[in-house]
Amino acid sequence: MLLGIDLGGTNVKVGLCGPNGRILAGDSISTDATRGPRDTIRRIAALAKSLIGSRRIRACGIGVPGPLDLARTRIILAPNLPGWNNVRVPSILRRSLGIPVVMENDANCAAVGESRAWPRCDGFVLYTLGTGVGGGLILKGELWLGASGAAGELGHMTVAPDGPLCGCGRRGCVEVYASATAVSRAAGVPAKAAFAAARGGNAAAKGAIATAAWALGIGIADLVHALHPDLVVLAGGMAAAGRALLEPVRAEVRRRVFPVHREKIRIEASRLGDDAGWIGAALWAARKIHDR
Amino acid sequence: MLLGIDLGGTNVKVGLCGPNGRILAGDSISTDATRGPRDTIRRIAALAKSLIGSRRIRACGIGVPGPLDLARTRIILAPNLPGWNNVRVPSILRRSLGIPVVMENDANCAAVGESRAWPRCDGFVLYTLGTGVGGGLILKGELWLGASGAAGELGHMTVAPDGPLCGCGRRGCVEVYASATAVSRAAGVPAKAAFAAARGGNAAAKGAIATAAWALGIGIADLVHALHPDLVVLAGGMAAAGRALLEPVRAEVRRRVFPVHREKIRIEASRLGDDAGWIGAALWAARKIHDR
Repeated sequence: MLLGIDLGGTNVKVGLCGPNGRILAGDSISTDATRGPRDTIRRIAALAKSLIGSRRIRACGIGVPGPLDLARTRIILAPNLPGWNNVRVPSILRRSLGIPVVMENDANCAAVGESRAWPRCDGFVLYTLGTGVGGGLILKGELWLGASGAAGELGHMTVAPDGPLCGCGRRGCVEVYASATAVSRAAGVPAKAAFAAARGGNAAAKGAIATAAWALGIGIADLVHALHPDLVVLAGGMAAAGRALLEPVRAEVRRRVFPVHREKIRIEASRLGDDAGWIGAALWAARKIHDR
Repeated sequence: MLLGIDLGGTNVKVGLCGPNGRILAGDSISTDATRGPRDTIRRIAALAKSLIGSRRIRACGIGVPGPLDLARTRIILAPNLPGWNNVRVPSILRRSLGIPVVMENDANCAAVGESRAWPRCDGFVLYTLGTGVGGGLILKGELWLGASGAAGELGHMTVAPDGPLCGCGRRGCVEVYASATAVSRAAGVPAKAAFAAARGGNAAAKGAIATAAWALGIGIADLVHALHPDLVVLAGGMAAAGRALLEPVRAEVRRRVFPVHREKIRIEASRLGDDAGWIGAALWAARKIHDR
């Protein structure tokens, strides 16, 4: 049995799953990041222990936002978790739980979890559309970390080099057009409500969704030219809009790739939703501990 | 012993190498594509036979421009080889040579060959800067072909969606700024001469090189965000300029990636030069025939 944790800026999801990702139990608490990492980690450990009960847990994985050090011992920079920079989350948590803890980027964990729901993909790409835009790549069944461990930053591929300023300090990243934050700002309503507003004829909402789809389409078309993944999955609250988001993204990608690519383009919405992160963290932990 | 062929729009290189890519013999002939594929293939076979002499050849690989069908039996579209579309190159050549023939995209072959000169790279990316801009990816030691077999089209990643029209029908691709054709057009002299002209103070040549470096920098930074390869190699005649091309590209990439990426960015010029294509074709053929 495995323990998975998905640490977000607002909530923390904690769950137990089997070695193939089957959900056995799960719950969530608020992050309350301002109370400091030790307080949050203490409450995570308490929830985990109550879920575990008398069961035997083989490994624990935790997905966290922001870039990590290559050895996965510390969070380097967590803009949405003030006070968590340089905190050694896995070692603190291991002391509380008494089991090995593996930390990984949250979007990478979501990619590991989500990819289990889509078998037979040599190239699997996940976009997480939230406060920012993250991503994860599973290539030939393996999470691709890259030279720095910080691959999969799909939100910071450039759409338009003279576009609006991004939080990363550069211009025209996918994230400035396609995050839930960007859609909400342009639509004047929360991102999830923008799709209903667009159906009702709201021009700002329509424009916000069209812009997000255009930017995602350019980013995904770039990935198709470079990698041609079998499948691109969109996750995060906005992906719940289903075809209202998928169709304009698919159309933009089809316009931008070669005929030889076009027959094999598959862009879908997440199947696991919010559970992908913690399940992926748990499965990744099992994998890493097996490798040690 | 292996036979490798690199079929270009102007010349065809043919060579023999050992199982690890060591060069044993090589020569080239002009393509004369207008005389038709059968004529060119006949002359390739004649040159190959004269190089082979009494030696025993295990496999033959041929690198060809343009997208191929997924089974690698035909060239689908070869803009620089009029009359070669849908020609079954491997089967014609096999009948002449009496050995198994494997066909692959020329930039993919160059990536296979060049990557042998750079050991210990989990993520290896090659750009070929020529008439167009091609590319190839070697991930964990394996050529990455993608869902359609047409991954590695790095010249058609988007730099600026409202940029100049590209030969592919879209706007602002890497290729419209960074191919030898584009540099030559903007500089008013051949691409190889543009670097000397820029050193001599020629403003058009300086601008052409700066624009090419800017576009390559955006494309490579996108790949760093997505994949973070250990190494990016620039090949083709322009790469012979060395630091005059590499330095502005490196500077642009460093500006565009995260601090966590910046420590592990490596961008170099090709070590094998023109030989990478035919050597890679030969090595790839050996690999594919071993798998059969």
